[in-house]
Amino acid sequence: MENFNFKILKKDKKTAARAGVITTKRGKIETPYFVPVATLGSVRALNSDDLVALGAQCALVNTYHLHLKPGDKTVKKLGGMHKFMNFEKTLFSDSGGFQAFSLGLAREHNIGKIGNFFPGENGKKEREKPAANVKENLTRITDEGIKFKSVYDGSWQFMDAKASMKIQSNLDSDLIMAFDECTSPLSDKDYTAVAMRRTHDWAKLSLKYHNKEQALYGIIQGGWFSDLRAESTEFINSKPFDGIAIGGSLGNCKKDMHQILEWVIPQLDDRPRHLLGIGEVDDIFECVDRGIDTFDCVSPTRNARRGSLCIRPESGGNVKNKFRLHIASAKFREDKKPVDPHCSCFTCQNHSRAYLCHLYHANELSYYRLATIHNLHFMLDLMGQVRTSIKKDTFLALKKKWLAAG
Amino acid sequence: MENFNFKILKKDKKTAARAGVITTKRGKIETPYFVPVATLGSVRALNSDDLVALGAQCALVNTYHLHLKPGDKTVKKLGGMHKFMNFEKTLFSDSGGFQAFSLGLAREHNIGKIGNFFPGENGKKEREKPAANVKENLTRITDEGIKFKSVYDGSWQFMDAKASMKIQSNLDSDLIMAFDECTSPLSDKDYTAVAMRRTHDWAKLSLKYHNKEQALYGIIQGGWFSDLRAESTEFINSKPFDGIAIGGSLGNCKKDMHQILEWVIPQLDDRPRHLLGIGEVDDIFECVDRGIDTFDCVSPTRNARRGSLCIRPESGGNVKNKFRLHIASAKFREDKKPVDPHCSCFTCQNHSRAYLCHLYHANELSYYRLATIHNLHFMLDLMGQVRTSIKKDTFLALKKKWLAAG
Repeated sequence: MENFNFKILKKDKKTAARAGVITTKRGKIETPYFVPVATLGSVRALNSDDLVALGAQCALVNTYHLHLKPGDKTVKKLGGMHKFMNFEKTLFSDSGGFQAFSLGLAREHNIGKIGNFFPGENGKKEREKPAANVKENLTRITDEGIKFKSVYDGSWQFMDAKASMKIQSNLDSDLIMAFDECTSPLSDKDYTAVAMRRTHDWAKLSLKYHNKEQALYGIIQGGWFSDLRAESTEFINSKPFDGIAIGGSLGNCKKDMHQILEWVIPQLDDRPRHLLGIGEVDDIFECVDRGIDTFDCVSPTRNARRGSLCIRPESGGNVKNKFRLHIASAKFREDKKPVDPHCSCFTCQNHSRAYLCHLYHANELSYYRLATIHNLHFMLDLMGQVRTSIKKDTFLALKKKWLAAG
Repeated sequence: MENFNFKILKKDKKTAARAGVITTKRGKIETPYFVPVATLGSVRALNSDDLVALGAQCALVNTYHLHLKPGDKTVKKLGGMHKFMNFEKTLFSDSGGFQAFSLGLAREHNIGKIGNFFPGENGKKEREKPAANVKENLTRITDEGIKFKSVYDGSWQFMDAKASMKIQSNLDSDLIMAFDECTSPLSDKDYTAVAMRRTHDWAKLSLKYHNKEQALYGIIQGGWFSDLRAESTEFINSKPFDGIAIGGSLGNCKKDMHQILEWVIPQLDDRPRHLLGIGEVDDIFECVDRGIDTFDCVSPTRNARRGSLCIRPESGGNVKNKFRLHIASAKFREDKKPVDPHCSCFTCQNHSRAYLCHLYHANELSYYRLATIHNLHFMLDLMGQVRTSIKKDTFLALKKKWLAAG
């Protein structure tokens, strides 16, 4: 389509990694890229000028939440999301279908899209269900669409493919997602197949109803079942989507996720590939290795707010500590060093661990911005290192440097 | 003293207003000035770069709170408050004595430093006491000093004049306050006299023990009793303080506060005068009129966080609406205008009332920063208008324009 273009600049020789550029009418996104999540039109604790200062090339907004608050019709009246949040770069929106899981079986099963229901490295005992922390399932799903109970006022809202396309059109995001049903890792194969076929029907409806000014990504589902993933990949890849997204559920552990990518990606053509809702440091390397171009995930920003701040291998980051330090720790109370001494972000250039530790314990609002700036800068810088390494044929060396650090 | 200088540039002919410049080793403060409050080393929701961008010439930090968190000794180890919060402009610190009131009788009497215990315009009925919302008095006060129960961990802490001077020295603020006891508007004359004489003893001790590199302000107490205020003014004004601060309690209503200033200020010489903890728009005009040079107050920043955003007379602000709009109001949901169409702040230049209304209702952290930037910019801009008007002999016209708007 006119408003969307993806160009692969370099393919890695030893892996499926590739460096490219997505071009939208709002600008360019160099891939691989990590898309910051601005759920309600603001990356939590940041303003759009912070995103610009960070050099963010895009952000992702949430269709379900914005539909309810302030309402996509309100956003449209106000000139669309870019104008509403005063951010002129590319915006992705999700489809609303992830909330089928996050408000539904994720609550009922008390589980994430990577399930971890065989806990421990050698654990084989199936997780007890229902778990202790079970919450009400706030969804009712049929072939027609998804009924959601609003997290804001408890009212029931219905969304189908046509409505999702309309909402995303009202938001005026640049890259939109086909309506889908994200299932739980604890859903059985029969249910996962039913949900997948619904997702395929909704994919066709999304292609029919979407605003043709917006680039549309189809979403591959199928859980952690190889034949379902194969079926879904074949189906979605056969349709004229502008890009391909891979949705959850992603199995029990990260190895399952890697396996799923190995089933799916070799079947895909050269359209851009987005992995929905994933984005820890090790994931970036493993999934870029397997051919993913873009990621979105709340974890770097959420971790920041909870006191987990990213550190590079040069500053002690490794797989075991998840490339994070915990700023709440008493050991940082009098530490004059920046969070990551090898970081060039605003926070590290201006403030000490001691100050952030203090602000964190004092619940000062300024903490959240400084911490979020650091973690997002870290992720964007990491992606830059990854892109450069692919272009220079040193991706595997970079991956090894990071993942073998310790 | 070497590190401190105050020069009066212009005295208004019709009022006691004056324009001047305070010079410290960190820079200049043009007066009249509103000093932003950075209680724990951060103006709530702002970072020091925001303060610099706002053109703030100074800030005020809180001795009691910083003594407890992270501890003034920790701050000293980290190089003092300027380095700790990365803010190179002038810092004021209070004495800790205000917490004698805010954690003591303010809680027991459920009252502020302007009491409002004859509520309503013509109300004469004395406020019932103890009021419904009475809380534990967290202080024990003797001639030796003040025992405070920590709001953080419930431990009892003792502070006297010597300790207050030591803490403020550790903080390395530029302008410090003598240790004092702030009384309640509901304290009777006998108690207020006892507290005032204690404050005078502590003033002498503060002069003796303070770090001579820091400029020291003496604090006038005496409640709303004319003879006590006269006695306190005479005493404090007779001592070699670098500046004079006027402390609470300030009576039942703003008129009582104005009366107190009229008792006190004509007795003072030309040293700079600070009014502690006051700073709404009408207060600025009435108190500058009576000769106040600097103010500090949390209300503009606290109001911002609670959804009350400042507006000029040109944008509908007046005494009745307290120069504020309430961004939570449904009428702003689709309002594309900035908060104050006549404002040049970052927030108003970049964002709409609709977006702020949305962020406020969504509890987005970014709301707090945008709102705080606006209200502080408003206050600093107001002070600039006040200074210019004094220099141009138009202060009373400006005051009338603002206070008669409606």
